Amino acid sequence: MTASRFDAAVYAHRLRAAAAAAADAGLAGLIVTPGYDLRYLVGSRAETFERLTALVVPISGEPTVVLPRLELASLKESAVGDLGMSVRDWVDGEDPYELVVAALGGSPVATAVTDAMPALHLLPLTAKLGVLPVLATEVLRTLRMIKDPAEMDALRKAGAAIDRVHARVPEFLVPGRTEAEVAADIDKAIVAEGHSSAAFIIVGSGPHGADPHHEISERELRAGDIVVVDIGGPYEPGYNSDSTRTYSLGEPSPEVAERYSILQRAQRVAVEAVRPGVTAEQVDAAARDVLAEAGLAEYFVHRTGHGIGLSVHEEPYIVAGNDLPLQPGMAFSVEPGIYFPGHWGARIEDIVIVTEDGAEPVNHRTHELIVVPV
Amino acid sequence: MTASRFDAAVYAHRLRAAAAAAADAGLAGLIVTPGYDLRYLVGSRAETFERLTALVVPISGEPTVVLPRLELASLKESAVGDLGMSVRDWVDGEDPYELVVAALGGSPVATAVTDAMPALHLLPLTAKLGVLPVLATEVLRTLRMIKDPAEMDALRKAGAAIDRVHARVPEFLVPGRTEAEVAADIDKAIVAEGHSSAAFIIVGSGPHGADPHHEISERELRAGDIVVVDIGGPYEPGYNSDSTRTYSLGEPSPEVAERYSILQRAQRVAVEAVRPGVTAEQVDAAARDVLAEAGLAEYFVHRTGHGIGLSVHEEPYIVAGNDLPLQPGMAFSVEPGIYFPGHWGARIEDIVIVTEDGAEPVNHRTHELIVVPV
Repeated sequence: MTASRFDAAVYAHRLRAAAAAAADAGLAGLIVTPGYDLRYLVGSRAETFERLTALVVPISGEPTVVLPRLELASLKESAVGDLGMSVRDWVDGEDPYELVVAALGGSPVATAVTDAMPALHLLPLTAKLGVLPVLATEVLRTLRMIKDPAEMDALRKAGAAIDRVHARVPEFLVPGRTEAEVAADIDKAIVAEGHSSAAFIIVGSGPHGADPHHEISERELRAGDIVVVDIGGPYEPGYNSDSTRTYSLGEPSPEVAERYSILQRAQRVAVEAVRPGVTAEQVDAAARDVLAEAGLAEYFVHRTGHGIGLSVHEEPYIVAGNDLPLQPGMAFSVEPGIYFPGHWGARIEDIVIVTEDGAEPVNHRTHELIVVPV
Repeated sequence: MTASRFDAAVYAHRLRAAAAAAADAGLAGLIVTPGYDLRYLVGSRAETFERLTALVVPISGEPTVVLPRLELASLKESAVGDLGMSVRDWVDGEDPYELVVAALGGSPVATAVTDAMPALHLLPLTAKLGVLPVLATEVLRTLRMIKDPAEMDALRKAGAAIDRVHARVPEFLVPGRTEAEVAADIDKAIVAEGHSSAAFIIVGSGPHGADPHHEISERELRAGDIVVVDIGGPYEPGYNSDSTRTYSLGEPSPEVAERYSILQRAQRVAVEAVRPGVTAEQVDAAARDVLAEAGLAEYFVHRTGHGIGLSVHEEPYIVAGNDLPLQPGMAFSVEPGIYFPGHWGARIEDIVIVTEDGAEPVNHRTHELIVVPV
């Protein structure tokens, strides 16, 4: 399973950087239960829920993995062995929260916990720690947001793979077929083009396209439909693709074409706004302003984008109120949309990586409304 | 999708019972983010993570669902509409935690939160609530543990379905085939016999059977192998099966046969120990004592069982230290095992429902070591 993770040196670097970030935040350490932070830090895809598995990263000294004895074998799927990390296993009847606190040198102790830690563990752990933790996102944000070269390469490969799927989508969009049938073809194509699996498939045809979170249904496609296709999935070693294109079954009406062209401009202007030092909310505003000037502001009902990496949705969020300045290596979607309830919707989405002086899209399919002959 | 949930009246009853339990615990209400508690209380299978979706159940007054406007359409898959519940949607930029606190009448306020609530929401919510919440498990435990007649029926149907799969397992266990190939057949059979999907498939052959959490591998089965097969999955409306049988490819050695017979007795004695008033740890001890008397205590490295329902693992846990008295309607696994590292392992698992005077197993396949001719 070595293909499913990076070299141990990559994780060793990340663990040191995480400890340094925790120290900078005035904390004694980090506590990371299964989820993307654990995968990021030690390459582990553990999914334990009810029995505590936790990586404890103190700001000085070696990290420790606390986990149920039953899960010891799972460590071979991670970099924990290669890193020679300390492992403290526990059996039913022992108190694993005591082990976590011991690995941090005792309580009370100020820590950060991974965003995904469930209340089931967080509440008893807080009692032992003696201090309410903060979110690890506050500490790991910069580290996780700024992709290293291997991560950027993984995102480019995932982007190329989903582009190949979009290239095949027109052949699937045949009037009379249901959204679910189209999605089944897309599902196969996502895997055939190299993804580990499909993470999400939205086929929003006709009025369903006006619901940004519609997934699929038994609705049959009809000539004249506008169809929003938003698809993606993880590509080894686990970085996600996410791309939306909008298709028209037959020539669109002049009104659709005109509104779509405004959306296309909004997406382009937002990507052009991306560069180091610009804030996330300025990118959101760039898209929103174009739509507002055309009187379409009320039809753009979501944020402009989200960060992407091991998780499909992560920081930075491209949304009003986020004054985070962009930095080279950040990767996120730029995906404005317009939604006319009961009628139709459209969205254009590329993933971009912030460069030294702009944005590098990892998706390269046309941004035009793609007309499928019917 | 009405088949995927119970009648609205069932949920209305559960919501009232949950509010009453919260009042008994001296709390002002419950806060439930997506997960099994949400599914239990309103039939919702929402899976939002980063944007807050929460059911707020105050001890007096009507429950409120707080959710992102983008997710409004998902409510039609739940009983929220049928129940005429109050819904408060929010858009990016709003503070959803304020909405939760408002639905509880303001802060500071003592609440219980669902076990699955991630730190991402729990930490900012705690800041608004002004009081560290407790786990909803503490409040909902009795309600969720004691299955109502519809839930018991669902568990029986799931049990019958997994029995049908075990009936077909011998035909899959052919020397030369890999554990992964066997698992692929089992996966299809689990669905063919009526489950929505397979939740887990363990095929532990030979030395792999000695690792209770081994799943599958590319190891090829051989004549003489002892094979642990632990399988299950959700059956509409979402209640899980979970059953383990152990197979022998050819006649077992006398030592294996003798040790297996002790395990079989341990499992039977534990089931016979189940009745109202007996504690969970007494059931665990019943199995453990049989193995200890035969000198096998050290080879039984896990607890005897776990509750089951919408979740594969839930309360009550049949484990040392759990002095919970059993009550009619509780459902859990009884699954002692013996594990000889590097050699072989065995486990026998049935789900049982506590009756007025004993235990009703929902699985009915033989408990003998099942010899597959080779």
